[in-house]
Amino acid sequence: MPKLVNETLQTVLDHIDQNLDGAIGRLQDLLRIPSVSTDPAYADEVHRCAEHLANDLRSIGLDTTVHKTNGHPMVVATDDSAGTDVPRVLYYGHYDVQPVQPLEEWDADPFEANVVDGPRGKRIVARGAADDKGQLMTFIEAIRAWKTVHGKLPIRVVMIFEGEEECGSESLEPFLNAHKDELLADTCIVCDTGMWDVDTPAITSRLRGLVYIEATLHGPSHDLHSGSYGGALINPANAITEILGQLHDSQGRVQIANFYDDVDEISQAQSSQWNALGDADALLLESSGAKETFGEQGYTTLERLWARPTCDINGLFAGYTGAGAKTVIGASATAKISCRLVAGQKPQQIEDNLRAFLEERTPSGCHWKITSFGVNPAISVPTDSPWLAAASEALTETFPKPAVLIGSGGSIPVVGSFQEILGIDAVLVGFSLDDDLIHAPNEKFEISCFHRGILAQATILDKYASIQS
Amino acid sequence: MPKLVNETLQTVLDHIDQNLDGAIGRLQDLLRIPSVSTDPAYADEVHRCAEHLANDLRSIGLDTTVHKTNGHPMVVATDDSAGTDVPRVLYYGHYDVQPVQPLEEWDADPFEANVVDGPRGKRIVARGAADDKGQLMTFIEAIRAWKTVHGKLPIRVVMIFEGEEECGSESLEPFLNAHKDELLADTCIVCDTGMWDVDTPAITSRLRGLVYIEATLHGPSHDLHSGSYGGALINPANAITEILGQLHDSQGRVQIANFYDDVDEISQAQSSQWNALGDADALLLESSGAKETFGEQGYTTLERLWARPTCDINGLFAGYTGAGAKTVIGASATAKISCRLVAGQKPQQIEDNLRAFLEERTPSGCHWKITSFGVNPAISVPTDSPWLAAASEALTETFPKPAVLIGSGGSIPVVGSFQEILGIDAVLVGFSLDDDLIHAPNEKFEISCFHRGILAQATILDKYASIQS
Repeated sequence: MPKLVNETLQTVLDHIDQNLDGAIGRLQDLLRIPSVSTDPAYADEVHRCAEHLANDLRSIGLDTTVHKTNGHPMVVATDDSAGTDVPRVLYYGHYDVQPVQPLEEWDADPFEANVVDGPRGKRIVARGAADDKGQLMTFIEAIRAWKTVHGKLPIRVVMIFEGEEECGSESLEPFLNAHKDELLADTCIVCDTGMWDVDTPAITSRLRGLVYIEATLHGPSHDLHSGSYGGALINPANAITEILGQLHDSQGRVQIANFYDDVDEISQAQSSQWNALGDADALLLESSGAKETFGEQGYTTLERLWARPTCDINGLFAGYTGAGAKTVIGASATAKISCRLVAGQKPQQIEDNLRAFLEERTPSGCHWKITSFGVNPAISVPTDSPWLAAASEALTETFPKPAVLIGSGGSIPVVGSFQEILGIDAVLVGFSLDDDLIHAPNEKFEISCFHRGILAQATILDKYASIQS
Repeated sequence: MPKLVNETLQTVLDHIDQNLDGAIGRLQDLLRIPSVSTDPAYADEVHRCAEHLANDLRSIGLDTTVHKTNGHPMVVATDDSAGTDVPRVLYYGHYDVQPVQPLEEWDADPFEANVVDGPRGKRIVARGAADDKGQLMTFIEAIRAWKTVHGKLPIRVVMIFEGEEECGSESLEPFLNAHKDELLADTCIVCDTGMWDVDTPAITSRLRGLVYIEATLHGPSHDLHSGSYGGALINPANAITEILGQLHDSQGRVQIANFYDDVDEISQAQSSQWNALGDADALLLESSGAKETFGEQGYTTLERLWARPTCDINGLFAGYTGAGAKTVIGASATAKISCRLVAGQKPQQIEDNLRAFLEERTPSGCHWKITSFGVNPAISVPTDSPWLAAASEALTETFPKPAVLIGSGGSIPVVGSFQEILGIDAVLVGFSLDDDLIHAPNEKFEISCFHRGILAQATILDKYASIQS
């Protein structure tokens, strides 16, 4: 069936097609700023990235402000020139990125942002390529194209760009509360999620929540020679493995107290919809390079990822971690531990029970120092709104296959904050793939996803213009 | 009882007392060379340290050669001018040092080698102060004093200084085999052990052996986002804690197969001698800063340290180990694991069984990469030799309290190599204290131990001259 596109939109889409190289260049410029938010050493770069983004938005003609926060800056840009009889849409993206370690596993500098050939055509390789700089540029480029071709937008827009998504979003909720009026909108597009596969676009309707702590077990007051002391004192590295080794039972179930109390069982209907999506195991194994799937017994891969909570050690270190052998008993041992949460689970209660799990197992004469990196609940958005339907149509018109409705194993806390503080349900439209190596070495973004993402965002703008707000 | 010291010796002892500052300065010069042998980045410094030591030995008048090896250099110095009717004594020390990490826990640069005030008088703080540069300088300074005062030594000496003691001593045995004739001696002084306490000198008659491996568990082919994958794939960090958490049972017994098969029970007589030494628990807690002793049930602290084998995690790392939170599932998890061995245990068999312990627990779809850093057996030396008796007398004459016979939890593989290749039993005389922070930040050596160590070594030279070889 030929796609029916009106001429106003078609000229925008043509412009996007003809000017893709410019869009790629602008994405490269953004990726070349190492805006690693969790590491204080990069604070200046995060700030520089906010300014760079703001200047680009100003160049499109958006009214843009870089707001200071207690942490990294918040960038807000608005264009209300389309008048009050059209909807106002809030866009969200984050310009900060994950750390790059282990650096030696990258094929090139993580901030070089080269376009290279891959099995699906060109791709851009850089930290942040898919998470989230490449994604936020899809709607910026769509808006740039509309403004360039028609001199104005078909809707009103307000954009917010966060610099702390990868380090706990401490400033986000205070900022939303303080700038509520300015950010008010009829709907919201959050662009930080994935597609089902390279040809199949997706809208994400459920996200897992997160609890993340760092726990250090302290034993002796200083590092000790393992010959002189080994066998006669607690070795915190031994002890932490004994404790953390109890986090799961043989069925893969998390052993934190009351962990599953508030977890809903998965409905037959939901299960069937997910099963119909395709071979999730094959996608997972291909994108991860793992040999087998693994997890809580009695659940499928998509159920484990989208509807079951987890407990994972994200970081672990003790004693000597350099090259070669050192006969040392380290004074302490540290684990970074997170739980992914599903609907119903109360994040603070899970964190408390995780802390209790550790404290109850403290070896005699030792003590824990535990730091929280914040908690957020699982989230779901309504799947019957006109905004979601219009976005789904736009995706279906742009990509080879129709849009599908999926869940996500990850957390996007801002979606809950928008619901709670601004009273807006987000539509989660995103263009990354499972093999984009998000948070890992050689993160990339397919140029075809970037290109179609811009086209889809331009089409969403057009469709949203005709929704009665 | 007044000590009876002959005049020949007394002039040497007086010279040592009067020239202590010079000896301290020479020790500082040696400590200021960062000869970290396990880290390839320091290879040039290790070499420089060998040359520095050799030049110092030449300045005393010893015939000195820096021998190349496949690893770090071996320094050999001889003085056979005392003639063939006196014994020839082999001296051993190592000029390489442990890594300094964690650097931030040092109060000053580890290679600044400052003399500072401590509760027991002056001390010198530096990596290698007690292990082993401060110790090897005790016999070098004793020999320097003898040569300075009398122009010659009362015995023949041959010294060997190794640069790989802290990284596996790969070159040692090939070197001993190749230079057997040159190194032949009637007895051997190994100066790399400790005293009972600051007033009580000790000779060590038993040492534990060592097996040391590094084991990396590989899961997915690259680091993964913990949201997108968590719960549906093996997390190597989770898995390694489950596996290593099984290394000990609730009684503190190591669960490696056949681990205790060849371990001798401790005799009542041995137990009684050790119990008579004093309050080992108090010494251990004070020097370690630990709150409680801990270990295999049914044994005392000295038994656990000197007569029972161990299994300790000396290093552990997985996922993200930087500051802040990173939601990552690391592609691999690594542990550095060592076992201290006691008499009777077969090192290679223990290593094989440790590897099997890990391999048998490999999670489906994962694999281990295991590297060995070498093995060596536990060692004991005869306690009824005239050499040991004379050294004991010398120590008793030098220190406030009589010398005692002790064990050591650590390993000094060279003692076994000397027995096997050169046919010589070593006398293990050393001057470090339990709180010298060997292998740890702020390693130090008491100036009083250094001073008395030199005096004791000078006295040993005198006593050895009258033993019929």
